Amino acid sequence: MPASSGHIVIEAVQPELDGGRFRAKAVAGDQVEVTADIFRDGTAELAAVVRYESPSGEVAESSMTLFDNDRWAGSFQPPRIGRWRYTIEAWTDHFATWLRDLTKKADAGQVTELDLEEGALLIEGRIPAVPEPDGAVLKRTVALIRSTPLGPGNSPQVAAALSPEVMEIMSRHSDRSGSATHRTLELTVDRERARYGAWYEFFPRSTGAKGQHGTFRTAAEHLAMVAAMGFDVVYLPPIHPIGETHRKGKNNALTTEPDDVGSPWAIGNRFGGHRSVDPNLGTLDDFDAFVEAAARLGLEIALDFAIQCSPDHPWVTQHPEWFHHRPDGSIMHAENPPKKYEDIYPINFDTADREGLWHELKGVVDFWISHGITIFRVDNPHTKSFAFWEWLIDAVQGERPDVIFLSEAFTRPKVMYRLAKLGFTQSYTYFTWRNEKQELTDYLVELTQTGLVDYFRPNFFTNTQDILTEFLQLGGPPAFKIRLVLAALLSPSYGIYSGFEFCENVPLREGSEEYLHSEKYQLRHRNWAREEGTLIPYVRKINQIRRDHSALGLLANLRFHESHNDKVLAFSKTAPGHDPILGLVSLDPSNEQEASISLDIPPWDLEAPPSYRLHELISGTTHEWRPQDNRVLLDPSIEPALIFTVEG
Amino acid sequence: MPASSGHIVIEAVQPELDGGRFRAKAVAGDQVEVTADIFRDGTAELAAVVRYESPSGEVAESSMTLFDNDRWAGSFQPPRIGRWRYTIEAWTDHFATWLRDLTKKADAGQVTELDLEEGALLIEGRIPAVPEPDGAVLKRTVALIRSTPLGPGNSPQVAAALSPEVMEIMSRHSDRSGSATHRTLELTVDRERARYGAWYEFFPRSTGAKGQHGTFRTAAEHLAMVAAMGFDVVYLPPIHPIGETHRKGKNNALTTEPDDVGSPWAIGNRFGGHRSVDPNLGTLDDFDAFVEAAARLGLEIALDFAIQCSPDHPWVTQHPEWFHHRPDGSIMHAENPPKKYEDIYPINFDTADREGLWHELKGVVDFWISHGITIFRVDNPHTKSFAFWEWLIDAVQGERPDVIFLSEAFTRPKVMYRLAKLGFTQSYTYFTWRNEKQELTDYLVELTQTGLVDYFRPNFFTNTQDILTEFLQLGGPPAFKIRLVLAALLSPSYGIYSGFEFCENVPLREGSEEYLHSEKYQLRHRNWAREEGTLIPYVRKINQIRRDHSALGLLANLRFHESHNDKVLAFSKTAPGHDPILGLVSLDPSNEQEASISLDIPPWDLEAPPSYRLHELISGTTHEWRPQDNRVLLDPSIEPALIFTVEG
Repeated sequence: MPASSGHIVIEAVQPELDGGRFRAKAVAGDQVEVTADIFRDGTAELAAVVRYESPSGEVAESSMTLFDNDRWAGSFQPPRIGRWRYTIEAWTDHFATWLRDLTKKADAGQVTELDLEEGALLIEGRIPAVPEPDGAVLKRTVALIRSTPLGPGNSPQVAAALSPEVMEIMSRHSDRSGSATHRTLELTVDRERARYGAWYEFFPRSTGAKGQHGTFRTAAEHLAMVAAMGFDVVYLPPIHPIGETHRKGKNNALTTEPDDVGSPWAIGNRFGGHRSVDPNLGTLDDFDAFVEAAARLGLEIALDFAIQCSPDHPWVTQHPEWFHHRPDGSIMHAENPPKKYEDIYPINFDTADREGLWHELKGVVDFWISHGITIFRVDNPHTKSFAFWEWLIDAVQGERPDVIFLSEAFTRPKVMYRLAKLGFTQSYTYFTWRNEKQELTDYLVELTQTGLVDYFRPNFFTNTQDILTEFLQLGGPPAFKIRLVLAALLSPSYGIYSGFEFCENVPLREGSEEYLHSEKYQLRHRNWAREEGTLIPYVRKINQIRRDHSALGLLANLRFHESHNDKVLAFSKTAPGHDPILGLVSLDPSNEQEASISLDIPPWDLEAPPSYRLHELISGTTHEWRPQDNRVLLDPSIEPALIFTVEG
Repeated sequence: MPASSGHIVIEAVQPELDGGRFRAKAVAGDQVEVTADIFRDGTAELAAVVRYESPSGEVAESSMTLFDNDRWAGSFQPPRIGRWRYTIEAWTDHFATWLRDLTKKADAGQVTELDLEEGALLIEGRIPAVPEPDGAVLKRTVALIRSTPLGPGNSPQVAAALSPEVMEIMSRHSDRSGSATHRTLELTVDRERARYGAWYEFFPRSTGAKGQHGTFRTAAEHLAMVAAMGFDVVYLPPIHPIGETHRKGKNNALTTEPDDVGSPWAIGNRFGGHRSVDPNLGTLDDFDAFVEAAARLGLEIALDFAIQCSPDHPWVTQHPEWFHHRPDGSIMHAENPPKKYEDIYPINFDTADREGLWHELKGVVDFWISHGITIFRVDNPHTKSFAFWEWLIDAVQGERPDVIFLSEAFTRPKVMYRLAKLGFTQSYTYFTWRNEKQELTDYLVELTQTGLVDYFRPNFFTNTQDILTEFLQLGGPPAFKIRLVLAALLSPSYGIYSGFEFCENVPLREGSEEYLHSEKYQLRHRNWAREEGTLIPYVRKINQIRRDHSALGLLANLRFHESHNDKVLAFSKTAPGHDPILGLVSLDPSNEQEASISLDIPPWDLEAPPSYRLHELISGTTHEWRPQDNRVLLDPSIEPALIFTVEG
């Protein structure tokens, strides 16, 4: 026989990942809504609370309310980052049950003294637990119920029992005996940058004068330009010493010329490994100065964390046991048959010296944290150990909950989502290849309207050093505008890789997504000073719109709308207390497209005035729209996108 | 740091109820399909098995295969009833990974002796675990790989490694080190009657000669008629002594006349309680003879298990602590304010003598099992304790896995589904009130195409002693035919309450679902001998069709089809090895309805011949149909439903 009668069920709790195995995610200041199916056998009334605990152990509660079909909702607002805990407690509310039945009996003129005495006993039973002056109120109520003779309509006693004051006191001091408490769940509460930010990737070595290797100092000079474009985060490819053995030449050539700089992802040489900087970029002090210069401009630096080594990395000789070995004793290089990556040795996470390896890798992260870095873009995490990531992120964020990990896992969806469950703060996505209306809609609905919102945060990159999509190769500047607006408006976090603002679009060869003269293997000089003919002003405008309209900083508030044209995406982002945003984006970089939009968009549909004044934020124009069927023409050679807000 | 590297993920396992908290259900002989997301970090290949254990502890395995997007499937076929256990084990298949890469390298002409030696070592490593003659095959393979010099195309060694025989042996003796094993899950494997059966409810006391109280003997004479109609289960309302205190009169009157028989649900009087039979029905020996007579006819008797007492029940004096008491010491009667049920005392499952009460209730079930009863229709289980049901059903089925519990919980959906999770074998449903095409479709999709199929088995009753729906009240005989065909074809288990076959349709009053002159409170004489003008032949026909076409005995195989008419429901039930069934049912008892049906129905759509020969099973007619747009006219005054099978 079970130890208790277990009347109450709490199930289908949200957010709850895999039965509490993983933490859900939120941002400090969010109103975290907790919902659950809560019910019991029989017909008694229930009461329920969300109980939550701050990282420093303060516990508080907020009440839940039934909204539909045994589903209850409550919420709490964690003001600070760190690991919060929460659960649900539900109990039978005997007083509310008695009140409910008493009301029905009173309506039928059926109340007896016995009915009232049952209520008096319920109230009396709580008096010992209720401090003054509320206790006195309950005492008076009990006395009133018992002293007044039962009259026609039972009004005095019923009124006493039903008084709002008594109900409130009894609710606040409800008898929770026999309550059910759900398992304790955890929530990672991050800073806002975990969800929202505009990212810009560039290679510091490309910031030198023409023909010269850039340094942290020349890169620091470039930061003002990046800040002026409105970016929040600067992501740098690996800054460590670059291997010489099997170094790749320009355009990934197997042989090198003397001046070839190699791929920064072939990490380590005689000057050091993951805790060192490439001497060509400068010193650690130069790096520190670069980070400080960024901070003065309101920019954060994100470093690449690529757990792999060139054959020249110090670990290869110091810790050969950290690598995979072949039958002849040689160290295995990376491969994806028939491709070989002889300049890179992968790490063996199952090494007998797991203790030493894993702690050294955490040491690398801690080292860069000590140099002011709190964002890491993790290279190909899906090819490393799941268990390692869970351990690492848990350990790092246990000490520094402000640290952000971006997963660069372009792999199968369930693997990407698993990495997010394991702790990655945000993730690269398939957005980069989603160009059609249906596939964009399907993917965004998956990312914003399913359980993924509790733990998977997208970062929409238009391009990367590895990915120049066919859409960008073929569509010209309108294609770049389209992809920029989609990335920047559909996802709170988005990014571009430098060159995008110059509409660089020449692939290594037809059918390839690699850049010709890729910066992965050579320096690339750009003239950022001249804005004419570039997208720099456009990028600046879009980032300004993001900053001016905080609804764009949220994820789950995206909704799509009918545009009556398969080439025009219509969507809105609204939230209480935020300016509503309506986006219309043509997906066709080559032809004019017409669309017809109705403003059946909360909160605009609430009052339904005869017309609305809309501001278009790119052009700064104002428009008078009807609630229904507003026709718009999108000419990609002028503006492929319109971004509206409504006059408030 | 975690104890292991935990590369492999097994998640989203189906069937799995609430993380293994509850048992899924199947029927002996079912092919139980087990699916899961299985994947790992990195790029290595995986292998996985379903491991299952019979009630007596025999363990076996069947292999799983990847079918899409990291989703794997396997199955097992439990031949016996009882509690089975199962889980999934998955591991990295190093040999398959090596083979995959070797194949790619071979295609690119890249294979080296080191590549081959790695495979040789993998094979050699398994030899100690592989019995002869397979071990010898592996030894020869290793020798061949090592002895042959590496030639152009690497053919001899590659061929040796890739030989189907070697692959099969290596797969069968795969190295499972580092495997992941999911939690052990449990499965209730029932006999077929748990899912499939036609039920017939009647009151034995109504089987007497006109004006006389029926007995088990007169009821036994009625069984042949029930068997001839093609039913499998006879459900009897409570057969126990009926209380006299506050006994309800005819039509639920508060006062009685001397000959009033009372409600069988007011259980217990001076002649006994839940282990006794009403002396008016006969003796326990008479009851045993009745059960035996049913068995000879292939009928099972289902008893009502209603845990409540009349004020005259022996427990009231023997165990007053098993009831709820009011402040004046009186025992609380049942109520649903403002309704009072003074003839019924509910039980207090939280009594201090829980041990005594719960075991006595199990004793009641065991008592009737000892009298040949293995099906219990449980009255209002949602008003009793959830924990009690879980304990009771677990305890009873632990000893007698053939026992079936039908939940009569007409309550909110989540409560109904919870009772099924707690162990109820099958459940009454909302079908009784679903008359429109959309609501029928939505509800049936929920019951047959969601996770409910793993644990919630519907039993569709057209009517009960408490429920005469408005559709039946107003629709005349065509309405009865419609509801019969829907119940009997849409759900493997269905039932009618006697009087249905006579189209009894007079409510207590307009707007009420109660029967006038309800058998709950009085005897009711019917002339079953005369079939003319009744639905008896129609019921017999429909039950015969159910028995002849086993696809109707399955649940998850129901699919709906376009009929181009909101008043015509088109559906099919198909399964490999079963005759396909296509049902067309007009939902309109008053007017002719036309529909247009296409045979895009597996398995009929597989070959797409120019025409099909269909047999209509009610009329026995044969029809030539095209694949597309077959028009049918349903005249409710003739036949509101057509049931087709295809010439095989």
